[in-house]
Amino acid sequence: MSAEPGVFRVGLLGHGTVGAAFASQLPQHAERVARITGLRPELSGVLTRSAGSFDQILENSDLIVELIGGIDPAREYLLRAMRAGRHVVTANKQLLSQHGEELWDEARRQGVQLRFEGSVAGVVPVIRVLQESLAGATIDRVHGIVNGTTNFILTEMARTGATFAQALAEAQRLGYAEADPSDDVNGRDAAAKMAILARLAFDTPVHIDQVRYEGIELIQPDDLEYARELGLGLKLIGTAERIGPALSVRVHPAFLYPGHPLASINGPFNAVTVESEAITEITMSGPGAGGPQTASAVLGDVISAMIPPASTPPTMEVLEIVGDVVSAFYLYLEVADEPGVLAQVAQVLALQDVSVKSVVQKGMGKQARLVMVVHPVLESRFTGAMDLIAGLDILRAPPRAIRVLEAEYG
Amino acid sequence: MSAEPGVFRVGLLGHGTVGAAFASQLPQHAERVARITGLRPELSGVLTRSAGSFDQILENSDLIVELIGGIDPAREYLLRAMRAGRHVVTANKQLLSQHGEELWDEARRQGVQLRFEGSVAGVVPVIRVLQESLAGATIDRVHGIVNGTTNFILTEMARTGATFAQALAEAQRLGYAEADPSDDVNGRDAAAKMAILARLAFDTPVHIDQVRYEGIELIQPDDLEYARELGLGLKLIGTAERIGPALSVRVHPAFLYPGHPLASINGPFNAVTVESEAITEITMSGPGAGGPQTASAVLGDVISAMIPPASTPPTMEVLEIVGDVVSAFYLYLEVADEPGVLAQVAQVLALQDVSVKSVVQKGMGKQARLVMVVHPVLESRFTGAMDLIAGLDILRAPPRAIRVLEAEYG
Repeated sequence: MSAEPGVFRVGLLGHGTVGAAFASQLPQHAERVARITGLRPELSGVLTRSAGSFDQILENSDLIVELIGGIDPAREYLLRAMRAGRHVVTANKQLLSQHGEELWDEARRQGVQLRFEGSVAGVVPVIRVLQESLAGATIDRVHGIVNGTTNFILTEMARTGATFAQALAEAQRLGYAEADPSDDVNGRDAAAKMAILARLAFDTPVHIDQVRYEGIELIQPDDLEYARELGLGLKLIGTAERIGPALSVRVHPAFLYPGHPLASINGPFNAVTVESEAITEITMSGPGAGGPQTASAVLGDVISAMIPPASTPPTMEVLEIVGDVVSAFYLYLEVADEPGVLAQVAQVLALQDVSVKSVVQKGMGKQARLVMVVHPVLESRFTGAMDLIAGLDILRAPPRAIRVLEAEYG
Repeated sequence: MSAEPGVFRVGLLGHGTVGAAFASQLPQHAERVARITGLRPELSGVLTRSAGSFDQILENSDLIVELIGGIDPAREYLLRAMRAGRHVVTANKQLLSQHGEELWDEARRQGVQLRFEGSVAGVVPVIRVLQESLAGATIDRVHGIVNGTTNFILTEMARTGATFAQALAEAQRLGYAEADPSDDVNGRDAAAKMAILARLAFDTPVHIDQVRYEGIELIQPDDLEYARELGLGLKLIGTAERIGPALSVRVHPAFLYPGHPLASINGPFNAVTVESEAITEITMSGPGAGGPQTASAVLGDVISAMIPPASTPPTMEVLEIVGDVVSAFYLYLEVADEPGVLAQVAQVLALQDVSVKSVVQKGMGKQARLVMVVHPVLESRFTGAMDLIAGLDILRAPPRAIRVLEAEYG
């Protein structure tokens, strides 16, 4: 295995949605990765349905990325790559939930890395956390929303009152469901992912055939309507839990009470909660499967295989640390209860280009209060406005301000 | 550096809350770790304020865990341990936010691992995720609730209308705040953690002195009351974000709209959201600092240093996979609108020991529906009841059932 000095050769098998996204992300990040690792990752070959030779790609690669999917020939390619001493990265949940032990055994035998973060919950780092962060914890239970298609459909049904068929059509229109969504909606995709998570959490072999699963095809709009009256939300939940000396691994629709950490996961997002006596629970959430997101998880795996463990790379460049940033603000004023108070305050804010989003006026006489939220503005401008407001006769106490954050995404 | 075959010698510096929890967790997990790694971790020495010699502990250890806290002598001990070729694990946020570059440089120079998952957000794996999973992503922003004391206080103030002083006293009573809570409530503790996260997310040196911080001491119950009217919740938020070619790192109280991924983080929990164009956002949450939780993060670091990267250990034992588990259920029945319907259904449920938690009865005539939630029961018992109910004359359509999950913790 020889390489040009400074180059890390990545052979890519498969060029579908995730494969294409990976092939486009790798060069974008190559320089950054080179600065972190000292090696520049480069695609040394791509195997598509119509072009490329596996043997030639293997020969010319330091690491093989398998994004073909399915059992054959993915299984054979991964085994051959590991036997040739290559690290391998895959996102293939079907394969791991059926032939995982064979592959993990081979990786240990060859002393190579087999990474598969992209196989469950896209870029949400559940695999790494179970394998490494929680290696010291005795895990009692794993709960997951691990299929974005069904979570999107259930969110739509709850939000709009749509039927399953209508919500599925909407998911297909938006690209959240494939043309043949069977394995998503019948729970089998989630079952494969739960088999992988259960294997890692409980150190016991789990095959997808041992996972009981039910889908969401039979859910009726009525169920969601009554559930709302009962204060419940509906999700397709995967569960892997110890029950005495045994294990239960299953996937089924379930209603959640509002306090449940998975209750607020909406749309195509995925989330996994890991429970353990020592740590109570940790929850991880983020976008589920999707070309760029899964590709990002695969790229993280490739980079992890390139860097020494637990290394903090040298700093890249010294970024200037700025003080003045843009924020929205909440503003609390104790004011005199007299005509023109709001006008005076509004005038000062306008003078500093601070724009008001909402106002609540409360109380009267000595208790009068003006509470506002203003649109995002450079903090120095807002502070200038505050100084001017503090000087107004109508103020009965110093103004108070607290920043307001809006959600960026979702 | 010689060791008994099969033993991995861990030297522990510091025996406070976290140190004592670590010393008690390590032997509990030693056998499991030995099965994963082939090496049994053992405490080879403990340095307390009154006993133990650093030199002797260093000599007899394969890895050093530093849980003394503060700058000196922790800094000196870590440097000396790394120069002696030892991997080191620490949870020392003060030290890393002030002398991080010196320590990370030394680790790279010596080719040893310096792990510090416990320094930020306890067992929530933010360090590992930034260092490894997201190494391939260009990060735009990190938001965090990284101080459990202040999040508990703000949650209490919002929930009960308590003043800051009252909520702080309650936090101290419950062990969520220390006798001297200054660095927690004034934002400095969170600032140290944000300096570390910013360093990792943006590959640029960040010293705690470059982090602007404000605390929560001046928050009034009024602010929370008016905010509720405006639909906002209040948190102490740390932010590290790119602004053009520069960086802003800051900690301040901030109101969040309900859609924000940090809006639902309550009580002493911590959470971190990482945003990037490629991945949109991922959020991780769990218990913040606390002896057992932070010790669990430290133990995860120790085990990670012992195992080869990305290895999936052999399975331990083959657990039986059980089919019949306990669940609560939602039950939807289309029934005849006649007297005694509820009684008949209730009788059948009672016969199978299924206990009803809530009932909604709706509609009349051909539209009559009975919607129930039952308490947790063995699924086979519930299925038995369903079969009996399906045979009742009063049913106008097959019964539908969906499982109901309650939150386990919090």
